[in-house]
Amino acid sequence: MSATAPFTPDRLAGTLADLRAQPPLVQCLTNIVVAQWTANVLLAVGAAPAMVDNPHEAGPFAGIASGVLVNLGTPYDDTADAMQQAAVAASAAGRPWVLDPVAAGALGWRTELAHGLLAAARPAIIRGNASEVLALAGGAGGKGVDSVDTPEAAVEVAKKLADAHGTVVAVSGPVDHLTDGERVATVSNGHEWLTRVTGVGCALGAMMAGFAAVTDDALLAATTATAVLTVAADAAAAATRGPGSFAVALLDELSLISPDALAERVRLG
Amino acid sequence: MSATAPFTPDRLAGTLADLRAQPPLVQCLTNIVVAQWTANVLLAVGAAPAMVDNPHEAGPFAGIASGVLVNLGTPYDDTADAMQQAAVAASAAGRPWVLDPVAAGALGWRTELAHGLLAAARPAIIRGNASEVLALAGGAGGKGVDSVDTPEAAVEVAKKLADAHGTVVAVSGPVDHLTDGERVATVSNGHEWLTRVTGVGCALGAMMAGFAAVTDDALLAATTATAVLTVAADAAAAATRGPGSFAVALLDELSLISPDALAERVRLG
Amino acid sequence: MSATAPFTPDRLAGTLADLRAQPPLVQCLTNIVVAQWTANVLLAVGAAPAMVDNPHEAGPFAGIASGVLVNLGTPYDDTADAMQQAAVAASAAGRPWVLDPVAAGALGWRTELAHGLLAAARPAIIRGNASEVLALAGGAGGKGVDSVDTPEAAVEVAKKLADAHGTVVAVSGPVDHLTDGERVATVSNGHEWLTRVTGVGCALGAMMAGFAAVTDDALLAATTATAVLTVAADAAAAATRGPGSFAVALLDELSLISPDALAERVRLG
Repeated sequence: MSATAPFTPDRLAGTLADLRAQPPLVQCLTNIVVAQWTANVLLAVGAAPAMVDNPHEAGPFAGIASGVLVNLGTPYDDTADAMQQAAVAASAAGRPWVLDPVAAGALGWRTELAHGLLAAARPAIIRGNASEVLALAGGAGGKGVDSVDTPEAAVEVAKKLADAHGTVVAVSGPVDHLTDGERVATVSNGHEWLTRVTGVGCALGAMMAGFAAVTDDALLAATTATAVLTVAADAAAAATRGPGSFAVALLDELSLISPDALAERVRLG
Repeated sequence: MSATAPFTPDRLAGTLADLRAQPPLVQCLTNIVVAQWTANVLLAVGAAPAMVDNPHEAGPFAGIASGVLVNLGTPYDDTADAMQQAAVAASAAGRPWVLDPVAAGALGWRTELAHGLLAAARPAIIRGNASEVLALAGGAGGKGVDSVDTPEAAVEVAKKLADAHGTVVAVSGPVDHLTDGERVATVSNGHEWLTRVTGVGCALGAMMAGFAAVTDDALLAATTATAVLTVAADAAAAATRGPGSFAVALLDELSLISPDALAERVRLG
Repeated sequence: MSATAPFTPDRLAGTLADLRAQPPLVQCLTNIVVAQWTANVLLAVGAAPAMVDNPHEAGPFAGIASGVLVNLGTPYDDTADAMQQAAVAASAAGRPWVLDPVAAGALGWRTELAHGLLAAARPAIIRGNASEVLALAGGAGGKGVDSVDTPEAAVEVAKKLADAHGTVVAVSGPVDHLTDGERVATVSNGHEWLTRVTGVGCALGAMMAGFAAVTDDALLAATTATAVLTVAADAAAAATRGPGSFAVALLDELSLISPDALAERVRLG
């Protein structure tokens, strides 16, 4: 842990204990690829998933969920409507919601959807890879996205994006970088097989929505979620031989990881 | 087995043997979260899944499927139309269909959908947890849903619901309770990890549709499906360390369980 | 390998090495049942999946993807529109696309969709079981589909279908048969558990789209994809006890299989 790290390992451990003590109900408006995986990740770590993503129910439900994930992986007209309603309703009810702008920048319609969501309501956390974060910032501030593509290079842009929207921005990569515009946390755990299993980042967004329900500090929530996932991944990778068995072991490790083990193994900056 | 148990273990074993001997084609109109898992559970146990859930094809296909599952986990306008058509067509053709009213009571639109389905056609089996079953009964008969939340407490309500619709009602829980309005069967197998894997109940509904295709006694079908799933879960839990490896082993055990092993291990009431 | 086999094992090994050296971006317009599985299979073997299947983005994205899969497993009005646009855009941009006409012949609407896709653009590869291939040919040429149901019996029909559309036709079965209308390749690897895991054929179609991006010979692409999948399945089945653990091991083996191991183990005709 560097001298400037915003959180001690014990803070993260306490946040994990809080989630286990009072399992949050996490509404997920996510994509057809990762819906099952996301629900199983939430169940493994100790949260309760609810995949309510139709426009008749998504808004009302967001007002009673503990936290909400809006993931743009496979949007359709009806689910996009539901996302807009859920984001607005969550904000109105004071519930944290997380925006995962999958493939923003690379695809036009969903980039518009992401900007529309940001214009309508303030997310607690924006989670993406460097390209996606830069695309959101570029759309808001005129920056191009092609010149930088690592989390390190994206940090300054992420800080400005966080400032502009009063949110936390989490940039995934070999080292994860997370910022609320002032503080910057890094998590250096994880394994390359995380990139060989579809939906790991998507599930991380759902975990962030869950942890944001148990602490008012959204940067702490996002950092804890990232730490839990990547520390569990370290353990899972050590015992498996490929991406199939790794994904299965990851669910086991997410259920087995204790707050103490988290504090001991996390590499924070 | 209590003296009043409606079925002997051998009856269940025979029903499993019948399904293996003549694999039913089970049409599933189910949710985006559990579609893959449901198909794999059906394949493992020995049935053939067919996920036909668009309004152009769902009705005609329900007339030729062996059994039909209608699961309200993630309904959309188009799939809700398809569900209505499938339920009506299955009933018209004399094919059993199973209603799984996921989250009925907690969410308004799908509760209406569930009541609309019940008004349009008689399901062979309604499967849910205590809250969902009570919500369906409450909507029909004015009962509140908040006072009872265990399968035991829901049994009397379930019997009335079964009577009112001429159907079987299966209430999931640590002990599963199933009734056709007169007879009540219980199954006491299972493991808490069943609640840490998404879609186990949803897949059970699909299994019930499969077993209902091989016996005219829908209570026997629902009880056999429940027994096969939970006995397999006992074996899976004994050899695994968390919900990820448990779910994988559950599929293995569903394919390996023999009628004799089922009869030997099931705890019926 | 028979004397008339169109490819040596080394050709397939080289094609696998090419895919690993330059991972193709495979756009999948596929069904809700197998989307996660398909993405994980592509990631395991070394390709990059992108599930872009809404009508706002599918066409433009098909122009930049390395290859495109159009799978008719669970079509809806909006995704069916997207499929049509993607097929046309891929063809216009010279990108290979693969048609997997799931359940064509058995269901009316999707059979029309399949014929509409074939009328609008030429696929590089059509992949299906014998019934599906025969249904496509029957619709085009008046042949019935009920008299033949094995890959062997379907080969002559497959050759005519390939000729009629200037495409490759891959017929799955215990022995896979693949033809471009003149050459016929067979692959005799594989295990019966492949039929107990949902979406194996669907994922194979996605793999074919990936391999078609790294060679201009679509028959070589389809044969390599089939060989990689079934040789990996042989290894997976040898170490597992049922369809659950088999599916997990299959992902591991797809990531571990080397070009040399492929050449050594494939049984080509």
